[in-house]
Amino acid sequence: MSRSALDAYANGAAWWDTAISDIKKNEIIIRGYPIEELIGTLSYGQMLYLLLCGEVPSVKKARLLESVLVAGADHGPRAPSIAAARMAATCGISFNSCVATGINVLGDIHGGAAEKAMQLFYQTKLLADADPSRDLAQVVAEQLDQMEKQGEKLPGLGHQLHDADPRISRLYALARPLVEEGEISGIYLQMAEQFRHQLELRKKRKMTMNVDGAAAAIQCELGIPAEAAKGIFALSRGMGIVAHAYEELQNRVLIKGPCPNREDLVRYSGPALRHLET
Amino acid sequence: MSRSALDAYANGAAWWDTAISDIKKNEIIIRGYPIEELIGTLSYGQMLYLLLCGEVPSVKKARLLESVLVAGADHGPRAPSIAAARMAATCGISFNSCVATGINVLGDIHGGAAEKAMQLFYQTKLLADADPSRDLAQVVAEQLDQMEKQGEKLPGLGHQLHDADPRISRLYALARPLVEEGEISGIYLQMAEQFRHQLELRKKRKMTMNVDGAAAAIQCELGIPAEAAKGIFALSRGMGIVAHAYEELQNRVLIKGPCPNREDLVRYSGPALRHLET
Amino acid sequence: MSRSALDAYANGAAWWDTAISDIKKNEIIIRGYPIEELIGTLSYGQMLYLLLCGEVPSVKKARLLESVLVAGADHGPRAPSIAAARMAATCGISFNSCVATGINVLGDIHGGAAEKAMQLFYQTKLLADADPSRDLAQVVAEQLDQMEKQGEKLPGLGHQLHDADPRISRLYALARPLVEEGEISGIYLQMAEQFRHQLELRKKRKMTMNVDGAAAAIQCELGIPAEAAKGIFALSRGMGIVAHAYEELQNRVLIKGPCPNREDLVRYSGPALRHLET
Amino acid sequence: MSRSALDAYANGAAWWDTAISDIKKNEIIIRGYPIEELIGTLSYGQMLYLLLCGEVPSVKKARLLESVLVAGADHGPRAPSIAAARMAATCGISFNSCVATGINVLGDIHGGAAEKAMQLFYQTKLLADADPSRDLAQVVAEQLDQMEKQGEKLPGLGHQLHDADPRISRLYALARPLVEEGEISGIYLQMAEQFRHQLELRKKRKMTMNVDGAAAAIQCELGIPAEAAKGIFALSRGMGIVAHAYEELQNRVLIKGPCPNREDLVRYSGPALRHLET
Repeated sequence: MSRSALDAYANGAAWWDTAISDIKKNEIIIRGYPIEELIGTLSYGQMLYLLLCGEVPSVKKARLLESVLVAGADHGPRAPSIAAARMAATCGISFNSCVATGINVLGDIHGGAAEKAMQLFYQTKLLADADPSRDLAQVVAEQLDQMEKQGEKLPGLGHQLHDADPRISRLYALARPLVEEGEISGIYLQMAEQFRHQLELRKKRKMTMNVDGAAAAIQCELGIPAEAAKGIFALSRGMGIVAHAYEELQNRVLIKGPCPNREDLVRYSGPALRHLET
Repeated sequence: MSRSALDAYANGAAWWDTAISDIKKNEIIIRGYPIEELIGTLSYGQMLYLLLCGEVPSVKKARLLESVLVAGADHGPRAPSIAAARMAATCGISFNSCVATGINVLGDIHGGAAEKAMQLFYQTKLLADADPSRDLAQVVAEQLDQMEKQGEKLPGLGHQLHDADPRISRLYALARPLVEEGEISGIYLQMAEQFRHQLELRKKRKMTMNVDGAAAAIQCELGIPAEAAKGIFALSRGMGIVAHAYEELQNRVLIKGPCPNREDLVRYSGPALRHLET
Repeated sequence: MSRSALDAYANGAAWWDTAISDIKKNEIIIRGYPIEELIGTLSYGQMLYLLLCGEVPSVKKARLLESVLVAGADHGPRAPSIAAARMAATCGISFNSCVATGINVLGDIHGGAAEKAMQLFYQTKLLADADPSRDLAQVVAEQLDQMEKQGEKLPGLGHQLHDADPRISRLYALARPLVEEGEISGIYLQMAEQFRHQLELRKKRKMTMNVDGAAAAIQCELGIPAEAAKGIFALSRGMGIVAHAYEELQNRVLIKGPCPNREDLVRYSGPALRHLET
Repeated sequence: MSRSALDAYANGAAWWDTAISDIKKNEIIIRGYPIEELIGTLSYGQMLYLLLCGEVPSVKKARLLESVLVAGADHGPRAPSIAAARMAATCGISFNSCVATGINVLGDIHGGAAEKAMQLFYQTKLLADADPSRDLAQVVAEQLDQMEKQGEKLPGLGHQLHDADPRISRLYALARPLVEEGEISGIYLQMAEQFRHQLELRKKRKMTMNVDGAAAAIQCELGIPAEAAKGIFALSRGMGIVAHAYEELQNRVLIKGPCPNREDLVRYSGPALRHLET
């Protein structure tokens, strides 16, 4: 089956087909709702969820999503995303392009663990649902066995800097009452903890969730697709990127590189001086 | 005075100096606040304002800011920002890079009028404050005179598609009660309306605010710096960009260009067939 | 083994370590050579190869590389890379950011087949070298068997538009004499043709190389690493992106979206008009 | 006069109108030439010039352009463009997106002086041509007077690091014989030197051309439009960006920020620890 856009159009598909918005003269419809009914009524978290997932989430769910967005908003200029945006701000490009420069690096490795963890969690849920005779702990153990065999790392655990990240316990504390109230199921929070706990037993050393892992569990609770995780993080870290690029812009310093001009920070390890043969 | 980063460092400045955040082991401080006290307490709008402007705004101010963010969130795939992100999603790059592609084009012209309008509004306020003997209408008239002389266009007015944009009246209706309650001064809303009204009289035809103009007035009311406007719009339209890129990703269509392969949409107007001289 | 940059630095590694260039006051050394000996001596293709691979290639090899760069330089505004850059040029961002917008979409799918084909070719070569008792045709057949089993598509074959791409025969005609002169081995050109030919026999229909496939074979002949392919294509298509963005910039048209405002080109398929419950 | 793309289309313009290339089934025409006649015939410099300016330049002119491209190709990881691309390479995004990240920062300040210098040179030429009674020295003096009055800095002079940049004398040495042969006029080289020399006399200290200034003079000699300068530099520095991002990719290090985690490199200067009022 062809996945060519040209073939789809030849077969009658519209070139640009969207269920997100309908834009006409003096009319902006978002997922069926007139925009003027959403402005001032929906929070940022509700609007993002409506655009991405198609329905308006409850206020409590949206607040939980915003908690995740706030948690990831900044990690200072040592983070490549923040540094890249700040360096861009000293190079004379449009401010939004500085922001894009920072967001462009939030890939598989820098914040991308949430997507991998969500994929694992959703898949584990499918396996657990498929065979109700096994409990969650068993399914998690099987998943860990398989990951071990394939040399895969469990996503969402460990951090270069933190081993008791203050964001994690806070996010958990915010999610727990929503489980009790039935707003979210709690299954993915439980699952994330199972993965962490069982790996700790296997490795015989303390394992800690990182903010990607906690965000992943909560985003699964909210029914957000795994493939959307990098986009959500872009809007979360995006806040910090905007603020840092703006701060650097105010410095009015020109062409700031990554580090000062010092011998211990940059090393040339290539061939010694030589000349072209003539 | 040198603006070189190297010179500043030679004179004792830290290479990376920030008043936004302090990141240490198991400690993330944002503008003085421990992050765990912000997560679940601040809304997206409050967190963005804190990061950018240094203080936590009131809930009402933050809601007004979120109204602006919601208003600009999407304008469908005919907008270059949305189309660029959707095309990127068919080309096999990281999802965040699709988002960056869309945000990269939100420049001076595509959403950038808000910054120009804010600069005008802040400057007009300074002029009005400097000479209390003139009323706002006079200062606005002088500004319009000068812009006319220099052939400058008033930013924040008119739209390719809308002439009664439903977002504008809604944003005004949300802002008005906050003026009455003293949350915001109302001076910039009044000023924007003065500019629109006086230009209408000069041009002798209906002039309508666009969403950039209304956003500019509200952002001035909130004390947001003009130079930050493109960053805020990046996080507003960013929501639509994330949703549209995700939707296109789900189509699993490959290499979608801007329009179907039809003769009426692409025209070659270069030299007729020729050959290199040999 | 940790792959953390912080750990490496803690163990004595330089933070920025490069074998490419050494920059000191009034001295720019590239791979050991003073830059002033390279300027005017090396062609673009030679300089790119020196920077990327560490040594200056022969003039003939560099010309072959430039042939590949010229071949991929443009495919008109229906290509997402070109369209994205042109749309960016109507949005008011820095010209280099328009170029970056175009290059940002040259990912796995849009031009990325060359990398996959190069990986396949290099791997096939290793397999052939490991067991001299089998001839190339046998090794290729085994690779095709395995790809078939795993449902993988052979990269570098087929095109949305062309079935006798004029670039392919030209590139082959340029490479052939270099095989005869011993400049390149010819093994990868032969291998690419074997893959194409055997697949044709299996599928019982005409299969044609595309420009990614031909570029891949030539780049393998030149000893370029597979993972560098997307970077090379960025500098090839980059020429077209620069020219098209510049042309669009000269139009001075504002906010050009992907297609005209016509009902047959954009379709909304979301929910019918609805209102928030209150 | 409207500059709206929608209005132009309503008046009969093609949506995508280009004089650069015509792409049909099995036919790729570049500025009138079939692509297969260009591949292997044109160098990179010739192809870039043809795409951008519409005609094939002489081999000597194209070589001079390539000299400029080679001269700007790399300035090591202390340059923001190189560092941004290397950091991106540790973050898990597509290789071309690493390249785009680097190119995205080559704005008005980082490499952008060439454009400003070219604008000045072209404008000075117009003034000189308009009144043949004044010699070049007089026109340059008037331009310097005016720039002084307006507080403008002469673009293309001075460098953070170099004061006798080895690239400059080499580029001049390559250009000189082409003046003698009549390939280029030499007027812009002379003009650049006049500007440098007169400023030196005014400032009473040594002033040196930088690589942007020398590139500007040569690009004017070649008839390249000023507004295209950033695109050309993108393809010049693009070589270094590709090589450095590839080198960093090979390190397989994860999330490398701008500098090591040391107290003397990052400083927090914001408010002391505080808590939200409740």
